[in-house]
Amino acid sequence: MFELGVVHRNIQRADAAVAQGLAALGSATVHEAMGRVGLLAPYMRPIQSDVQVAGTALTVLLHPGDNWMLHVAAEQIRPGDIVVAALTAPSTDGFFGDLLATSFQARGARGLVIDGGVRDVRVLQQMGFAVWSRAISAKGCVKATLGSVNVPVVCAGMLVEPGDVVVADDDGVVCVPRHQAAATLDKARRRESLEADKRARLASGVLGLDMYDMRPALEKVGLRYLD
Amino acid sequence: MFELGVVHRNIQRADAAVAQGLAALGSATVHEAMGRVGLLAPYMRPIQSDVQVAGTALTVLLHPGDNWMLHVAAEQIRPGDIVVAALTAPSTDGFFGDLLATSFQARGARGLVIDGGVRDVRVLQQMGFAVWSRAISAKGCVKATLGSVNVPVVCAGMLVEPGDVVVADDDGVVCVPRHQAAATLDKARRRESLEADKRARLASGVLGLDMYDMRPALEKVGLRYLD
Amino acid sequence: MFELGVVHRNIQRADAAVAQGLAALGSATVHEAMGRVGLLAPYMRPIQSDVQVAGTALTVLLHPGDNWMLHVAAEQIRPGDIVVAALTAPSTDGFFGDLLATSFQARGARGLVIDGGVRDVRVLQQMGFAVWSRAISAKGCVKATLGSVNVPVVCAGMLVEPGDVVVADDDGVVCVPRHQAAATLDKARRRESLEADKRARLASGVLGLDMYDMRPALEKVGLRYLD
Amino acid sequence: MFELGVVHRNIQRADAAVAQGLAALGSATVHEAMGRVGLLAPYMRPIQSDVQVAGTALTVLLHPGDNWMLHVAAEQIRPGDIVVAALTAPSTDGFFGDLLATSFQARGARGLVIDGGVRDVRVLQQMGFAVWSRAISAKGCVKATLGSVNVPVVCAGMLVEPGDVVVADDDGVVCVPRHQAAATLDKARRRESLEADKRARLASGVLGLDMYDMRPALEKVGLRYLD
Amino acid sequence: MFELGVVHRNIQRADAAVAQGLAALGSATVHEAMGRVGLLAPYMRPIQSDVQVAGTALTVLLHPGDNWMLHVAAEQIRPGDIVVAALTAPSTDGFFGDLLATSFQARGARGLVIDGGVRDVRVLQQMGFAVWSRAISAKGCVKATLGSVNVPVVCAGMLVEPGDVVVADDDGVVCVPRHQAAATLDKARRRESLEADKRARLASGVLGLDMYDMRPALEKVGLRYLD
Amino acid sequence: MFELGVVHRNIQRADAAVAQGLAALGSATVHEAMGRVGLLAPYMRPIQSDVQVAGTALTVLLHPGDNWMLHVAAEQIRPGDIVVAALTAPSTDGFFGDLLATSFQARGARGLVIDGGVRDVRVLQQMGFAVWSRAISAKGCVKATLGSVNVPVVCAGMLVEPGDVVVADDDGVVCVPRHQAAATLDKARRRESLEADKRARLASGVLGLDMYDMRPALEKVGLRYLD
Repeated sequence: MFELGVVHRNIQRADAAVAQGLAALGSATVHEAMGRVGLLAPYMRPIQSDVQVAGTALTVLLHPGDNWMLHVAAEQIRPGDIVVAALTAPSTDGFFGDLLATSFQARGARGLVIDGGVRDVRVLQQMGFAVWSRAISAKGCVKATLGSVNVPVVCAGMLVEPGDVVVADDDGVVCVPRHQAAATLDKARRRESLEADKRARLASGVLGLDMYDMRPALEKVGLRYLD
Repeated sequence: MFELGVVHRNIQRADAAVAQGLAALGSATVHEAMGRVGLLAPYMRPIQSDVQVAGTALTVLLHPGDNWMLHVAAEQIRPGDIVVAALTAPSTDGFFGDLLATSFQARGARGLVIDGGVRDVRVLQQMGFAVWSRAISAKGCVKATLGSVNVPVVCAGMLVEPGDVVVADDDGVVCVPRHQAAATLDKARRRESLEADKRARLASGVLGLDMYDMRPALEKVGLRYLD
Repeated sequence: MFELGVVHRNIQRADAAVAQGLAALGSATVHEAMGRVGLLAPYMRPIQSDVQVAGTALTVLLHPGDNWMLHVAAEQIRPGDIVVAALTAPSTDGFFGDLLATSFQARGARGLVIDGGVRDVRVLQQMGFAVWSRAISAKGCVKATLGSVNVPVVCAGMLVEPGDVVVADDDGVVCVPRHQAAATLDKARRRESLEADKRARLASGVLGLDMYDMRPALEKVGLRYLD
Repeated sequence: MFELGVVHRNIQRADAAVAQGLAALGSATVHEAMGRVGLLAPYMRPIQSDVQVAGTALTVLLHPGDNWMLHVAAEQIRPGDIVVAALTAPSTDGFFGDLLATSFQARGARGLVIDGGVRDVRVLQQMGFAVWSRAISAKGCVKATLGSVNVPVVCAGMLVEPGDVVVADDDGVVCVPRHQAAATLDKARRRESLEADKRARLASGVLGLDMYDMRPALEKVGLRYLD
Repeated sequence: MFELGVVHRNIQRADAAVAQGLAALGSATVHEAMGRVGLLAPYMRPIQSDVQVAGTALTVLLHPGDNWMLHVAAEQIRPGDIVVAALTAPSTDGFFGDLLATSFQARGARGLVIDGGVRDVRVLQQMGFAVWSRAISAKGCVKATLGSVNVPVVCAGMLVEPGDVVVADDDGVVCVPRHQAAATLDKARRRESLEADKRARLASGVLGLDMYDMRPALEKVGLRYLD
Repeated sequence: MFELGVVHRNIQRADAAVAQGLAALGSATVHEAMGRVGLLAPYMRPIQSDVQVAGTALTVLLHPGDNWMLHVAAEQIRPGDIVVAALTAPSTDGFFGDLLATSFQARGARGLVIDGGVRDVRVLQQMGFAVWSRAISAKGCVKATLGSVNVPVVCAGMLVEPGDVVVADDDGVVCVPRHQAAATLDKARRRESLEADKRARLASGVLGLDMYDMRPALEKVGLRYLD
């Protein structure tokens, strides 16, 4: 259940260096390091390609067809934040366009993750403002009903709390709880450091079957080879 | 209910200058000026990016899996038309490919909006023939059953009448009734002229909260700021 | 019903020249030559654009969330194969990423067709490894349950047998049974050779109505022209 | 494009005897007699079973999440009407519950067809108020924005004009244009009268292949029987 | 983000009288009293009809295709609880059947709300064990991976915390935070007490337009009546 | 890839006693005994409740909107068969109604499983003709294009071969390969015989945790109980 009509002004932001570290690793590696939890539903797709970011989640709770609270949220943005907008009911309307993007960018936002639609996508791409959304739609919004800013929200099926770290790229969007971010970065870096060597061996023709020593386990569960 | 088996040869086309004016503004601004009606369902997506057009709707009613009437429609195309193809029942088949596109382009069509699938999309992109569709599919069609040309149709949930103005870009497709087109253009231009100034102010860091004077209304409905 | 726990090592591969011939024609023309059967569901979309390939289907049967058998499959890959991965139940997880792609590419695979999700898509695009998938997702997989390699599978609604020829491009993915491949290539080439002339005539303004002599048939079924 | 903010008070209603005649035949037979057009999308499902009705369409155009115009529509209901509610954008909210049903029933409405959600479904069933809807949802609505009453609308993909005849039962909802209703009834009755004899012959074991003399046509298109 | 591998044994349960009070009012009235928040997605449908319950949410977090934690949850059930099962990723598998239902019923559970599939639905109906689910599927589950019991979960898009009150009937499922339950009951009862009178007036033919005094507001926003 | 234009007259039917045995156990138990494969997609839903059958699959391959081959199939029906109809592309049209049901019933068919729509559902229910379908739709079909009878088909994502045993009830539809049917029945019966005892113990309050001895395994993977 979500709280309506409040703006929490003081949230604890994620450590900037940790966020940058997670951004460099990308959503798939971070998600793996988290034990495969924290991923937003795969219907969340980027409107641009080749962008990989991470930042503090500034959360917004919106009603379908109403983007009033995005203006309220703009004032709370600090450089490095990623705005995470959730809805109280499904909608594909265009909640966000070039004017709001101009404002968010001026405040230092690193991107928007929204469980609804956006518009002016060509301009957003030209501005270099990164967005992950459920839909693209020319339909605008009213400014009439109260939502909230910086309350816990559920965005694309995942609970996001203000101050969590959001990692987003072409593979999707992952949410890392703030207090787990540093430990996750450590784990993810260890995974990553092992991968360069693996990649070289696989490129040389070594099989994963041998590199990971999978043959005994496969034999044990009864895999049969037929000629 | 839709009329089958007829081709209306004489439709009143939209004013070319008005269509060009609407194209320059794009679907989001036009949709806003219309009072937020007229948008086709957001599942209609462009097969190309960065194309923004408007033109007179030449409507076609097709049966699932049958593209015969697109050939009938080709003869009715005048330069500046956008063909709007609706279906009597849902289908994602590929109703339109490079041969029909060659014919439509030779007749002067500005694009195709189809509530079904298209194919040969790579060639269509190379030809510069703009398409907004529900799906992409290699599945071709038969030429066996009668539909209609230039009757009112429902395309992607929206009623489109022959002669209406269709505005399409990366944000989606909007339909403007012919007799409202000039007035819509006026309204949309007025909106647009106000936006350059707003954009500059937002870019300088002014908040929408202040620029639109939203604070009193938010206070009135009870928004609480917590520290 | 699908066989679990077996790897067929010896499959009869498609003729390489036939596969190359089909690749040059593309999925739409091949599908047409097949009599409009063999197309995988249009939710299968490429992660890249402008790639058109054909190759022998090496089939894999996976369980949701488990990519163990893709490692088993890697060993069976011969240059020119396209891996076709089916699932025993729907899943959008990321079954395939840059490490497996490195291994598949080292073995000579021409691409992957998977009725599930993939990840590391930016790296896959940079590597030039072609993929058609149902989804993109950062969510990784376990390696725990037995599927099969080179058994008949149903991928995106279509039966694919090991050794069939898979043709894939921006329009989708078509499966041609191995023993029909040469005949299909003949038919498809004959279709294609007729198209250059048709394209030129349509580009010059000739109507399909006249080129295909459709007017008598339309008149017979009662099409009425109204002024 | 739909007209907003108007209520047409005088519509020409369908002939009551014709509506009753169509109700007795049901949606499948009527749809067949129409030449297979006029059916609303099959996601429209009854909340009750075993109810078969027909009546004059009184149309309402609603905005998502707003049911104000259903109160405006109530005043226009005459005995025998079926209210057909369309939306300007998709929504599954509960637009209609037991209070509105009480009012509609008091005015003589024969049922509701709504391209959105309804609630209080248990009470509606107990009251015997028939509903065909897209969804069931406990979520209520506001009363804030203007729609229209008795303008042409698109409901579940089908154009419905005020005064058309709506036929609804367990198979779905069909819309018959008012001026075609009598002719459709004639055609549908002729179809129906032929069916009793056919049913008896099929029940006795005669095959459709023989009763409809399909064998020559099947042979001609090349059907092969293999033993 | 969700915690894996823990079972919270001591949760504060909702007041039994309050839960009973909310059950008597039903999901639509309670949702209204909550200010229209708290509703689970409308794809959650009952497998039975005519059952209206409320109880304390005992939450379970499951992985797709794995129902191990439902056995762990059974031990924590107290009479009057409703088990709310969420998934870490979408799945329609049958997580729950007649054996688990026998166990849950023996422990005093009042029902199950599950964002996945159930099976043995005929037996569940005969046993009178109430279920709201996303799907029905004969597909069983493994018992292999750790989830959690009594942690906050997101079920059908809604955050549910252990100890919240769940209200479920034919209209859907609503979640009321534990500390708001008594106040919500008060508000809902006040709404309900006003409805009997309204219902009687509407049944007598009074229009909502007059009963709610809507005519001045409609006139003010410009509704036009045309004859 | 599917063969078009052929009717296989002689198929090996499943053993009648085995089919009856499987029917008595139901789809969930049979699916479990199969090792959790063979289930058709859960969007296949019965139009009736409380019917549990099994029989030999007589397969039919149809084109969207065309039910000609169902008449061809009728002649091939033997008492105890279940007709399994697949489509070459998705469609929700009503392929089957009361006339075909009368014919199928006269020939001894035990039911229909169809990856498309059906109509006249009220009459079908009254006749006691069992159907599992993807949709219900009043839209009828033409009789114009060749499909096949008794070729392998893919129905709702599952490969079904003529002569396989189909088991269907309120939980869904399972396909058992003919040569595995007897062995599956044995396994399923063994599972079933163990369940009566388990059910009694669970009903008496014994926990699955203890009955299945799950506590050590849960402890080993690290489940923590918190007070």
